[in-house]
Amino acid sequence: MSKKIEKWEVIGSKYLIDRKPWLTIREDKLRMPNGSIMESYYVYEYPDWVNTIAITKDGEYLMVQQYRHAIGEINYELCAGVCDDEDDSPMISAQRELLEETGYAGGEWSHWMTNTANPGTHQNKTHCYLAVGVEKVADQSLDKTEDIAVHLMSRADIVALLESDAIRQSLHAAALWKYIAKTNEK
Amino acid sequence: MSKKIEKWEVIGSKYLIDRKPWLTIREDKLRMPNGSIMESYYVYEYPDWVNTIAITKDGEYLMVQQYRHAIGEINYELCAGVCDDEDDSPMISAQRELLEETGYAGGEWSHWMTNTANPGTHQNKTHCYLAVGVEKVADQSLDKTEDIAVHLMSRADIVALLESDAIRQSLHAAALWKYIAKTNEK
Repeated sequence: MSKKIEKWEVIGSKYLIDRKPWLTIREDKLRMPNGSIMESYYVYEYPDWVNTIAITKDGEYLMVQQYRHAIGEINYELCAGVCDDEDDSPMISAQRELLEETGYAGGEWSHWMTNTANPGTHQNKTHCYLAVGVEKVADQSLDKTEDIAVHLMSRADIVALLESDAIRQSLHAAALWKYIAKTNEK
Repeated sequence: MSKKIEKWEVIGSKYLIDRKPWLTIREDKLRMPNGSIMESYYVYEYPDWVNTIAITKDGEYLMVQQYRHAIGEINYELCAGVCDDEDDSPMISAQRELLEETGYAGGEWSHWMTNTANPGTHQNKTHCYLAVGVEKVADQSLDKTEDIAVHLMSRADIVALLESDAIRQSLHAAALWKYIAKTNEK
């Protein structure tokens, strides 16, 4: 029988930095179940994030490529973004991001998974959707701080990228490996 | 033909907070390929992280359960941790963490994947290992800021946790979904 794990109690909280939406850091003081006091537990606060496994009517996978400065690499990723306050739901956010970043829309949308970049540091969740049968309906509409290339790929291309760790972003790798696992079963 | 994506140029850099190893934030000023200037790009600096898919001689999967305060949930996870300076390699770090958090060691170890919590915000990488045939050799050895329960699970248990998004940590969900995908193929 494993021991019972309990939540920790917040006994103090303050913001170290508040530069929404890109950098908001809270410092909490916590009491653990064993009575130990943790003076500084850091929480990154963000809006929820979204991403989409988008597959065209021709069965091609819609991927984006961009420079990711923190890791210093040009990465392949799912189309992804941030939930805005004016979006009615995370799925609406994902549809807006797909249209803006790729010019694709339509198809059948369903919830695919909800996970986090790191439950120990990030308070937000990431919602992933599966969109099957998307079509090009517009040009890309990027703001000046975005530089994104759109690529249409085969399933074999996606597996090769996953196998070589070229899809670095674990939120996206988790969604795509799940897709490969579930469609392998069929 | 998709457009060519290039790296962005760093034209300024300073530290906002330096509280290693848990909170170190750099603010970079960047010039994009289109000439736009991004005044504030935030980078979280961390040591590399590690985690392990550990399977016992009896074919059970070694999972840990702990409270993750940022998301406010008690989560199931792979055994994971941080690369210390004195560790000779990330695999040594992963073996040290497995022994400390679970008391298990031994078996055949191989590199499984390398990804990141977020290549847009984190400069560090996470190295995942597959350890097959581990055995209990010691008691847990936790420090007072850790409260971790060890669980032995079947493959069906792991799939059920993945399917219900109960393995929130995308670094771990990616590694486990890859394992399910690869072993489904056989």
